[in-house]
Amino acid sequence: MNESRTVKVALLGAGSVGSQVARLLLEQSEAFAQRAGARLELVGIAVRNVDAARDVDLPTELFTTDAERLILGADFVIELMGGIHPALELVTLALASGADVVTANKALLAHHGPELFEIAERVGAQLYYEAAVGGAIPIIRPLRENLAGDRIERVLGIVNGTTNYILDRMHTEKDTLEESLRIATDLGYAEADPTADIEGFDAQQKAAILASIAFHTEVPVTTVSREGITGISAGQIADAERGGHVVKLLAICERVTDPDTGIEAVSARVHPTLVPADHPLASVHGGNNAIFVESAAAGPLMFYGAGAGGVQTASAVLGDLVSAARRHVAGGPGLGESMDADLPIVAPEQVSTRYQIALDVADEPGVLAQVAQQFAEHNVSVATAEQSVATDGGHAVLVIGTHTATEGALQQLVQALAETSAVKRVTGVLRVLGEGVRA
Amino acid sequence: MNESRTVKVALLGAGSVGSQVARLLLEQSEAFAQRAGARLELVGIAVRNVDAARDVDLPTELFTTDAERLILGADFVIELMGGIHPALELVTLALASGADVVTANKALLAHHGPELFEIAERVGAQLYYEAAVGGAIPIIRPLRENLAGDRIERVLGIVNGTTNYILDRMHTEKDTLEESLRIATDLGYAEADPTADIEGFDAQQKAAILASIAFHTEVPVTTVSREGITGISAGQIADAERGGHVVKLLAICERVTDPDTGIEAVSARVHPTLVPADHPLASVHGGNNAIFVESAAAGPLMFYGAGAGGVQTASAVLGDLVSAARRHVAGGPGLGESMDADLPIVAPEQVSTRYQIALDVADEPGVLAQVAQQFAEHNVSVATAEQSVATDGGHAVLVIGTHTATEGALQQLVQALAETSAVKRVTGVLRVLGEGVRA
Repeated sequence: MNESRTVKVALLGAGSVGSQVARLLLEQSEAFAQRAGARLELVGIAVRNVDAARDVDLPTELFTTDAERLILGADFVIELMGGIHPALELVTLALASGADVVTANKALLAHHGPELFEIAERVGAQLYYEAAVGGAIPIIRPLRENLAGDRIERVLGIVNGTTNYILDRMHTEKDTLEESLRIATDLGYAEADPTADIEGFDAQQKAAILASIAFHTEVPVTTVSREGITGISAGQIADAERGGHVVKLLAICERVTDPDTGIEAVSARVHPTLVPADHPLASVHGGNNAIFVESAAAGPLMFYGAGAGGVQTASAVLGDLVSAARRHVAGGPGLGESMDADLPIVAPEQVSTRYQIALDVADEPGVLAQVAQQFAEHNVSVATAEQSVATDGGHAVLVIGTHTATEGALQQLVQALAETSAVKRVTGVLRVLGEGVRA
Repeated sequence: MNESRTVKVALLGAGSVGSQVARLLLEQSEAFAQRAGARLELVGIAVRNVDAARDVDLPTELFTTDAERLILGADFVIELMGGIHPALELVTLALASGADVVTANKALLAHHGPELFEIAERVGAQLYYEAAVGGAIPIIRPLRENLAGDRIERVLGIVNGTTNYILDRMHTEKDTLEESLRIATDLGYAEADPTADIEGFDAQQKAAILASIAFHTEVPVTTVSREGITGISAGQIADAERGGHVVKLLAICERVTDPDTGIEAVSARVHPTLVPADHPLASVHGGNNAIFVESAAAGPLMFYGAGAGGVQTASAVLGDLVSAARRHVAGGPGLGESMDADLPIVAPEQVSTRYQIALDVADEPGVLAQVAQQFAEHNVSVATAEQSVATDGGHAVLVIGTHTATEGALQQLVQALAETSAVKRVTGVLRVLGEGVRA
């Protein structure tokens, strides 16, 4: 390899990840040059405001507000601005100009991945995005390459560190959701506006990306059903523990076979899930992420680590960059996306799983019969029922565990329960991690 | 991509892994063709005895004893024979003929990796070996590509399922080593001759491979120090638990910096290790494998799954094959090995860690003073000492935990202790997992 060769790297964005990428590119340039077979020269950093305060001290002459010009002079473009605009336009420009692009932008990929991959393939450029899911955890490349010869059945991910931190505190410290969120915000785990995390939008985008790769099928983010953690109460956490479970916000991507027709489809969804306490995902604490993959031949695999953080995410970005540069220097193209399976996507109401439904009911005879009747009418089979009198008297708490039922049947049942005279309130519905859905 | 294109695949070996690879290549040929952009045609399977019984029913016309001829007609050669000869000669022939090679042969790589990589680079062929370490667990590619832009500090691996199964049973079932080994043999976890596993030779080869990749440095297997599990007693397991530890056979690969000169070096070793019970590696049960990687930017990462098994290992082999074929069809070369850091390797006696030393001593006054004097003379600092009278009376058990000391000092100390009149016997020495060695 010819180490006197240089490749030009443009960086878009200098936030918490971007500033760490720039620092490491400058500090580790010797090591990277040896590994890539070429010097990786950081030719500039495009930002909105050249004079803004940065986490890291970087040479001021690198900064520019002219992103287009920077891109057109680069072999590699690293996009770390986040958001859709102007990231979409700039990544499009970079690919169209023949530059390879490394990005950590999950929103961009979840919403515009297919069109970007098409541009990349047309011009022979590469789009790398290991950092978009799971921060520092290797998951995109293992799914695309290591498991390329296997049949992935299911991907279960704790892919949002903020919500895992909040739920973990609710279990370990017995905090309420509000207290836990406040502490997460104080410690910098949650942003000032936590909506994207706690309502599950962030996990939804990551689920779309994971499902697309795992099942070789375009899974638009709009087809991923989503429920955040804002409905989770301290009581539900306590109930979960009593039942030997832990509540986790999971991104669930499954291959589903219709038992009648044998037709395969894909389901991707995000919701709080009761995970058995002895499942490896149950012991993922704090702000960590983990992705659990079940394949036909490999069996269960788990990938665990820091799911966010500037320097951690920078590791994934630089792994893509050094690998890409090595390939670039060696002269060959990389890997196209393989979306050839093109499976149908399961409608959310067709997904089946087990549920745990908590009800506030009147403390009087005949209530269980009334409730059980509703379950029977909606074709949802009761597996367990546990009734306890509330401490303030006058009403009782009824927790019902179901056998497998479809989401559609569940929704109708919940509505019917809410209208049942003996039921004061449906206080919670949780889905239970099972052996995979069979819609 | 042109799916009418065909690449020819030769398979060497039809044992537990090879027969599963052949089966999946035949069964999944449609899916693989879509993903790779070319049909992967299994053109033949070279075996010693065409008529031997196989795990899987395969077309008899595929079998041949003429491996050389099969290789010379193939684009890809999958070597799953194991052992050094004739695997070395056949892989050399395959690479020299320009074929890409996929292998799961850890012995071959640990002993002859550098010469094979050199041949591959010279002719522009690729050598893939994801299956050589950790079975189905993606670890080679994550280390080579995902972490290519990071600085790996330490790799800790439970890389041998047989010994993990045995040690796990000793903890959970309170079995002796002999009982546990017998059950492992009955269940097929251990081979009839278990030497390679229980004496740590298998883990030693894997440690050499992991250290070479992690530190971009050739680490010959002969430089990897090795201690198996045959010395582990039920008493040590009980002591470990009392101290909040679990005994695991670890492959430890570390970057070490001399505090005086600042010179970096590499240490790779295999030995039973006291792992804190709350460390992620402590909860790796049964025959599973896990690899824990600590990097400067990414922080701790863990990769977990089935470390062995025919079909599981086949998943890793086929992942390499499909990725390689995709790259082959796209027309470009793959990745050369990067051994450019070329760090020195730490001599075993220079490695420092903490130790736990168990002694049978006379039950009389002044014993602790005599023993402590030996520690002081050998410059090994005592952190904890716990003495208990043996149930059969007449002697006592003294367990001493040390601060960090070099392996060289430890060995001399142990010899001196054995010659100390108050010491009846040195019953065990265990190394304690710490924050990394600083030789």
